[in-house]
Amino acid sequence: MYFLKLMQGNRVVGQIEVEENANLLEVIRKQGLAMETPCGGRGTCGKCKVLIKEGPIAKENYDPEEMEKLSFVEKNAGMRLACKVRIKEDMVVELPAAGETDGVILTGGESQVPISPMIRKEHRILQKPSLENQMSDLERLEEAFKASAGLPLKELKQLPTILRENQFDVTAVIWGQELIGIEGGDTGEAFYGLAVDIGTTTMAGYLLDLKTGRQMGVSSALNPQRAYGADVISRIDYTIEKADGLKQLQDLVVNQINRMIEDFESKYGFSSRHIYHTVLVGNTIMMHILAGLPVKNIAVSPFIPVVTKRMDLPAEEIGMKINPTGRVTILPMIAGYVGADTVGAIMACDMAEKEEISLMIDIGTNGEIALGNRDRIMACSTAAGPAFEGAHIRHGMGGVRGAVNTVEIKDRVLYTTIGSAPAKGICGSGIVDAVAQLLRCGILESSGRMKSAEEVEGKLPPEVAARIRELDGKPAFLIAPREQGAEQDIYLTQKDIREVQLAKAAVAAGIQILMKEMDVSFDDIAHVYLAGGFGNYINYNHACVIGLIPKELGGKIVPIGNGAGVGAKMALLSRECLEKSEKIRQMTQYIELSSRLDFQMSFVDLMEF
Amino acid sequence: MYFLKLMQGNRVVGQIEVEENANLLEVIRKQGLAMETPCGGRGTCGKCKVLIKEGPIAKENYDPEEMEKLSFVEKNAGMRLACKVRIKEDMVVELPAAGETDGVILTGGESQVPISPMIRKEHRILQKPSLENQMSDLERLEEAFKASAGLPLKELKQLPTILRENQFDVTAVIWGQELIGIEGGDTGEAFYGLAVDIGTTTMAGYLLDLKTGRQMGVSSALNPQRAYGADVISRIDYTIEKADGLKQLQDLVVNQINRMIEDFESKYGFSSRHIYHTVLVGNTIMMHILAGLPVKNIAVSPFIPVVTKRMDLPAEEIGMKINPTGRVTILPMIAGYVGADTVGAIMACDMAEKEEISLMIDIGTNGEIALGNRDRIMACSTAAGPAFEGAHIRHGMGGVRGAVNTVEIKDRVLYTTIGSAPAKGICGSGIVDAVAQLLRCGILESSGRMKSAEEVEGKLPPEVAARIRELDGKPAFLIAPREQGAEQDIYLTQKDIREVQLAKAAVAAGIQILMKEMDVSFDDIAHVYLAGGFGNYINYNHACVIGLIPKELGGKIVPIGNGAGVGAKMALLSRECLEKSEKIRQMTQYIELSSRLDFQMSFVDLMEF
Repeated sequence: MYFLKLMQGNRVVGQIEVEENANLLEVIRKQGLAMETPCGGRGTCGKCKVLIKEGPIAKENYDPEEMEKLSFVEKNAGMRLACKVRIKEDMVVELPAAGETDGVILTGGESQVPISPMIRKEHRILQKPSLENQMSDLERLEEAFKASAGLPLKELKQLPTILRENQFDVTAVIWGQELIGIEGGDTGEAFYGLAVDIGTTTMAGYLLDLKTGRQMGVSSALNPQRAYGADVISRIDYTIEKADGLKQLQDLVVNQINRMIEDFESKYGFSSRHIYHTVLVGNTIMMHILAGLPVKNIAVSPFIPVVTKRMDLPAEEIGMKINPTGRVTILPMIAGYVGADTVGAIMACDMAEKEEISLMIDIGTNGEIALGNRDRIMACSTAAGPAFEGAHIRHGMGGVRGAVNTVEIKDRVLYTTIGSAPAKGICGSGIVDAVAQLLRCGILESSGRMKSAEEVEGKLPPEVAARIRELDGKPAFLIAPREQGAEQDIYLTQKDIREVQLAKAAVAAGIQILMKEMDVSFDDIAHVYLAGGFGNYINYNHACVIGLIPKELGGKIVPIGNGAGVGAKMALLSRECLEKSEKIRQMTQYIELSSRLDFQMSFVDLMEF
Repeated sequence: MYFLKLMQGNRVVGQIEVEENANLLEVIRKQGLAMETPCGGRGTCGKCKVLIKEGPIAKENYDPEEMEKLSFVEKNAGMRLACKVRIKEDMVVELPAAGETDGVILTGGESQVPISPMIRKEHRILQKPSLENQMSDLERLEEAFKASAGLPLKELKQLPTILRENQFDVTAVIWGQELIGIEGGDTGEAFYGLAVDIGTTTMAGYLLDLKTGRQMGVSSALNPQRAYGADVISRIDYTIEKADGLKQLQDLVVNQINRMIEDFESKYGFSSRHIYHTVLVGNTIMMHILAGLPVKNIAVSPFIPVVTKRMDLPAEEIGMKINPTGRVTILPMIAGYVGADTVGAIMACDMAEKEEISLMIDIGTNGEIALGNRDRIMACSTAAGPAFEGAHIRHGMGGVRGAVNTVEIKDRVLYTTIGSAPAKGICGSGIVDAVAQLLRCGILESSGRMKSAEEVEGKLPPEVAARIRELDGKPAFLIAPREQGAEQDIYLTQKDIREVQLAKAAVAAGIQILMKEMDVSFDDIAHVYLAGGFGNYINYNHACVIGLIPKELGGKIVPIGNGAGVGAKMALLSRECLEKSEKIRQMTQYIELSSRLDFQMSFVDLMEF
């Protein structure tokens, strides 16, 4: 028998003795504590996340579902899926608070990120003025809060009223050492922050409670700028061609963030005025557009951004609907094509703090790569193109419901789809699987040429050989014949293979150049951190088979999920991390690949599988 | 024969040998150098100011006209009226630059205020971006100017265009260590600042060239807020009664400053965009209204201002039409009734730097008094009322053309007026003269009662006795019978005498309380600095006779002119002075008189002449 203590926040909600090997989820349910588990405890929905506060976290015992469902930060914080935990000693477990089943506990006290945000609230009852104490209202505040007042004039105008209507009982909003806002009474409870990852294609927003570090909710949306071009270059062109194009694109993304905030408001019943800080990550062009800064010089050589250092802007200047005295931080960027998202990912994998050398690869619309350790980091951007996001692939699609996400070719062709829905298309992990297996069974030559059905006749199982068809006069492989409920047959075409070759060669060549510049061998690299949703789902073995990641590094891959988003959350929760982001910018040297002959040569060499 | 070198700025415009005792103005004219002298060299117009760069400044030889026409700072800088200088040794003399005959040289290199403004301009040609140097535009600026960029977003949006349209040849506007503006090409020549003294009644603006420290021009105007009440209390009432009253009063004074700027623009042919810094002084209520801050709590006990520390506001926030990236500084205030004007005057007389103890008295609409030295200063405000500005006096008026400014009673009554114009009324110095002489000749009793003509019959010269008339059933003394061109007889009435008694008793009691608080005797006080236009013109002896200033201090009086305005100019020209102003605020202890019984008792005691 072991002793189990269950908590919600600081409140103890259960103290019981349990049998050895009891399933944690079942024990929680028996206690009458609600826990949403749509999958019925089979470990596939990822909803039963709990924080192990005392007891074995046993990272090495994480099973594949846990590896997939828990983010890097969650794992580091000591989170597990309750359905996967068998009790083998005394434990203290924190459950999501009631009514927050949607959210997850991001960090506990023992996590690697202490909850000490740059922005904070302090409550005080000030001494009232008298003939013996005639200090001005502002001095009175400064003295009580031991902070220098940086109240904007607009706030200063309200100050006498706020002080007197609340009998000098007030809460200050403090940014670092600077008092930036003042509220009547004790408002310490209502204190939230927002982290937003603005991708070229998708946007993700995370609402965090700045008192506890708890993640209240997540919201995702497509980037509405897509209407003006799938890639950043067409959006830059739009800002050049159209006089108010930049403003239009800025408004689109700001309005989308404001809609996310409204959704959070109605879902969690709080006011957007209680969000005091937003941290934004994204590529350099997204960050510039968000701030309304011109992007045209990033499009042409030598690719110069207006600003790369961290910006902390008053929320009103951006038009973001959070507390008007709040701050909107744009995390620092490294160069025109290595943005705040890369800085976020470097922070998330902690490579700038470690002695060991890490390689970080973020494969999204472009592929950004960083190599180094606490002494120095080099980073580059490869125009890998969005093939692994499904773009430029005939039946490609993002990693959403209905996408073919795994493919296996044995006697016949097996595949799975996200949500087990009828196949609508194929996403990155499915593409990597398919290409790797087409190579293995000889349908693809190392040059990337796809053999015809005739060429493989008799050498492959008939069901597999029969899948080689012809589209537009060239061979194409039928991954998923149209089934009931599906819209179409799903193929991988010869042209798709060429796209994959271009993309993987660009990433692989980028890695090669960074290793050369840093004079680092495969053996020197301790870990390969794979950022982006893609990295969570691909088969690493297959990624090495197709040459996206060098085979020598196959065993060192650690997926970190949305590294950029995690970095943004870390900067939101911790002043130290916020400040570290600027250190990362300064220590990271950008390597421009476009003009390098050695990059072009590596690229061509690495086109072959 | 002596050697005389004449300069304009750094340019030598004349090198000549001159006879001993030659008149400097005549020598300058013989050289064909223009010098506007409306008075014909009689020392009354004060236009022929020159800076003695080498040679005897001989302050002790200043004659009364020079004492009057040259401000404290000008005298300290070594300025003289050319018409008053007789050459007695070799000299180097700087003349106003051609086309600047209206302006005066405020400070030379040897002056006590080094020209090193908080705001400055620096010109650089930046390295152009290339694939080898991909720094962002902002980093490039920071590196070139060794300053941290604090460009507002609006400016940042223009940055790429400004850099590229000017081939990276730019001028930065730097505030302290912070880069706040950027301009194409070398704009170092166009660099002006504005100091404004906002009085309850009048406003004075000084346009300064921030490169040289030269004063380009002066502008004065009535404070348009007068329409809402002559005193600050009625204006505060207006802001309470009328919902947008505060905004109205703010707009009035800001618009008046903007009109001054427009006048300077058309007069001196420069753009208001080339004014980068405005320093404002005035009483605490004027400063609050200018910033749009509520004043109602200053009106009632315990008289609390919103803010007293120095504010450096972006010009746009105030609506002041200078360069939009420029700064508007409101000098610090000490309390609700001891304002930025007092801080300016304390700075102008340098009392916060000296070991000797100084008393500073600024008599305007109220009387502010400061006593102390570099160790500590105490200050108070006495509700002296504006009697010495001519208010509440039957025929009182400000010190402008047509005001009786001196009065002498011997066998008959003699008087002079400003500009020798027909008498329109009587100003402060005339009032002090008149009261002192009425006391001396026995028409006034020490209680302040004015004797009737009958009472003095036979004791005074008949022409003098005949001047005692009766107005509203009480004695009144006819200072100036209506002469040709004048509007009316000018009287000093019994009620006027009572007003003077109240005013002088308040100031004298304030001095007594400060001396008591600081434990300072008359002997301990080295100098009495008299600020305000009034202080430049009154007869000190008479001020002591009526008891405005204690007789014991009579020999120590030094007039400093518009000390507030001089302080504002010093803060504009010197970062050190700007920062010193905040030190003065912090070291000055405010003494509230209103609730003190000992003040009331002193006040009553000191009502007698």
